[in-house]
Amino acid sequence: MTPHVVILGCGFGGLFAARTLAGAPVRVTVLDRTNHHLFQPLLYQVATAGLSAPAIAAPIRAVLASQDNVTVLMGDAQRVDLARRAVLLEDGEQIGYDHLIVATGAAHSYFGHDDWAPHAPGLKTLEDALEIRRRVLLAFERAERESDPARRAPWLTFIVIGGGATGVELAGMFAEIARHTLHGEFRRFEPRNARVVLVEAADHVLTAYPPELSEKGRAQLERLGVTVWLGRPVTGVDADGVQLGADRLAAKTVVWAAGVAASPLGATLGVPLDRAGRVIVQPDLTVPGHPEVRVIGDLALIPSHQPPVPGIAPAAKQMGRYAAVSILNSLEKKQPGPFRYRDYGMLATIGRNKAIAMFGRFQLSGYPAWLLWLVAHIFFLIGFRNRVVVLVDWAWAYWTLQRYARIVLGRRKDI
Amino acid sequence: MTPHVVILGCGFGGLFAARTLAGAPVRVTVLDRTNHHLFQPLLYQVATAGLSAPAIAAPIRAVLASQDNVTVLMGDAQRVDLARRAVLLEDGEQIGYDHLIVATGAAHSYFGHDDWAPHAPGLKTLEDALEIRRRVLLAFERAERESDPARRAPWLTFIVIGGGATGVELAGMFAEIARHTLHGEFRRFEPRNARVVLVEAADHVLTAYPPELSEKGRAQLERLGVTVWLGRPVTGVDADGVQLGADRLAAKTVVWAAGVAASPLGATLGVPLDRAGRVIVQPDLTVPGHPEVRVIGDLALIPSHQPPVPGIAPAAKQMGRYAAVSILNSLEKKQPGPFRYRDYGMLATIGRNKAIAMFGRFQLSGYPAWLLWLVAHIFFLIGFRNRVVVLVDWAWAYWTLQRYARIVLGRRKDI
Repeated sequence: MTPHVVILGCGFGGLFAARTLAGAPVRVTVLDRTNHHLFQPLLYQVATAGLSAPAIAAPIRAVLASQDNVTVLMGDAQRVDLARRAVLLEDGEQIGYDHLIVATGAAHSYFGHDDWAPHAPGLKTLEDALEIRRRVLLAFERAERESDPARRAPWLTFIVIGGGATGVELAGMFAEIARHTLHGEFRRFEPRNARVVLVEAADHVLTAYPPELSEKGRAQLERLGVTVWLGRPVTGVDADGVQLGADRLAAKTVVWAAGVAASPLGATLGVPLDRAGRVIVQPDLTVPGHPEVRVIGDLALIPSHQPPVPGIAPAAKQMGRYAAVSILNSLEKKQPGPFRYRDYGMLATIGRNKAIAMFGRFQLSGYPAWLLWLVAHIFFLIGFRNRVVVLVDWAWAYWTLQRYARIVLGRRKDI
Repeated sequence: MTPHVVILGCGFGGLFAARTLAGAPVRVTVLDRTNHHLFQPLLYQVATAGLSAPAIAAPIRAVLASQDNVTVLMGDAQRVDLARRAVLLEDGEQIGYDHLIVATGAAHSYFGHDDWAPHAPGLKTLEDALEIRRRVLLAFERAERESDPARRAPWLTFIVIGGGATGVELAGMFAEIARHTLHGEFRRFEPRNARVVLVEAADHVLTAYPPELSEKGRAQLERLGVTVWLGRPVTGVDADGVQLGADRLAAKTVVWAAGVAASPLGATLGVPLDRAGRVIVQPDLTVPGHPEVRVIGDLALIPSHQPPVPGIAPAAKQMGRYAAVSILNSLEKKQPGPFRYRDYGMLATIGRNKAIAMFGRFQLSGYPAWLLWLVAHIFFLIGFRNRVVVLVDWAWAYWTLQRYARIVLGRRKDI
């Protein structure tokens, strides 16, 4: 009987695992709790009204339609039963597997302070991005309704918690919105007087980058008007602002980019996890004692792989391909070598036309780094149509300083 | 002191009133409860995943930014106090006016059966469109999870109630989605076997058009695979389907396109309304006894204007301009003539490349009518960037039969 491969999650890991199995002598079921594959590196663009949601997401069914051996299901995996080799879904349905690839990724971690979550949304899903967009744009709208400058100030203060790539990209874009996009649109205040504050507990931003690049990134942020507070761990977040030890910043819009935790599905496997909830896997990505189960992407920790595999899209993609190939190898009784991450570097944008980039020992910053980022992201987007749309949107935004995905629906529910 | 003109609502009526007042010796406040101006004629495209929301909506602030005499506020008008010449907002704020233009449009009417509303959403706002899109796409996803064909059938049955232009456009697009867009993407059923049923109480669809054009429209719908039931008033709508007298259609997705009612704000004026809640106005669009208050667009009924002014975008636009000009005239103590609607015709699309059109006695149908529709809509869209984006999206969709705004967020809350 044709072996059944079940893939949980259709992010970069799951999608590229499925694509690698095209035409293979297996039956594949892809399960995702949404109907789309998300290009997460550009999520901050949706959060800052630079791109519409469909521009960075592709319908999974459409992407995999031509692969006859693949069935796509939309549903929530609740638990994996390793002994019975079955995945239990939210409505009680069970899906049996011969091989399982768990690729459900990561979510936010508030370091035990889940009560901060409603006041400081993170950025992992499209819903997150649209919620952040709504809060930012409606904050400016509220400011225009407020006649008292003292009461207006918290509406015009935006705090980003966490100085990694996500936080830096968000903070830079908030500053661009205040400085350029909304210029001239308000009558009761000057948008460029909005405060954008990036708060980081470590002593520099972008700790994944070498110090000289982090420094360049910070300088660029400050040139955009972002206030960068380093060495400041957050001690409290509420509806009116952020507490940093003895200091308090009053702000109605706070965004969380400070911690990730692994998908809760990992814990249901009943195998050892690390402190962040990631599943500890073998060098070949299999779960100890279960060679038919592989964990990939942000959910996996490979202790034997040094330096550690970064939690970025290219790594998930490579792990997805590797997992698929090693399943095929196992069907032919071949042994795969260990997974080895090929480092093609990292990029982070700062504002509308600057970035920092590194590739091995090669470093780049400023405008040339941003051009590299642009090309790389367009190239790696899924779907030719999305590439055209994103190019049009970005070219337009670049030349006109406008951000066009500024539509907000509904109200802020947090206020 | 500079006269203060307050405009409630920024649809076609309100927006064009505001634009006509550019550079005029008045102070203008535009109030809308959203942050965007919506190109309503294309809302059905968002509802059927053909366009993203930002493509058909423009941020009001951006559109009016260059008009220094205009302040844009986002808020909800609760009541108009004609005696005190003030508008009361939802949070208690009051805005006084010297001249008022009420342009808050229309909403759905369920003919007294408001309990039908959760089961049969209408199509007036972006939220409506995204909700319909979500329900339609998730119905197909649910069908793929359902192994029993009898239980799957209601998930693959889509009912549109109301055979006017909106209903016809929706039904045609649902049929295109089932026939073309989703072809090959499902493994457990054939999408083209989905049933799309258009139900209309009158004895033909598109009653605003001459009978020969309505007939062509109906024939075209049926060629697309839509089942058209005429002379069938709906007697009940619930979570599992629609009751039509003794007949019942089991369907999990029902859309309401059968009745509009005027915005509730009209009733707060305390002046006579018609049965649909529209404000009965003078030939110059003013409220009887209050020459400083004008009502325009779908909210207004001009009994003296025969034939009646249709409730379509070009009419609202003309009324908006007229209202603004007559305010300026009144400042110079000039009397305007009565409002006269200039009929540039009407268009309705049927499926992806057919339409019907009429202009006076000139009638057109089929592909040529659709080309005319395309050009007209692109031309009238607000914002050059939107025109480019929509052209790209449509060109792509046309050539590839794909619909790219297929991203759904969240779950169906109605099931």
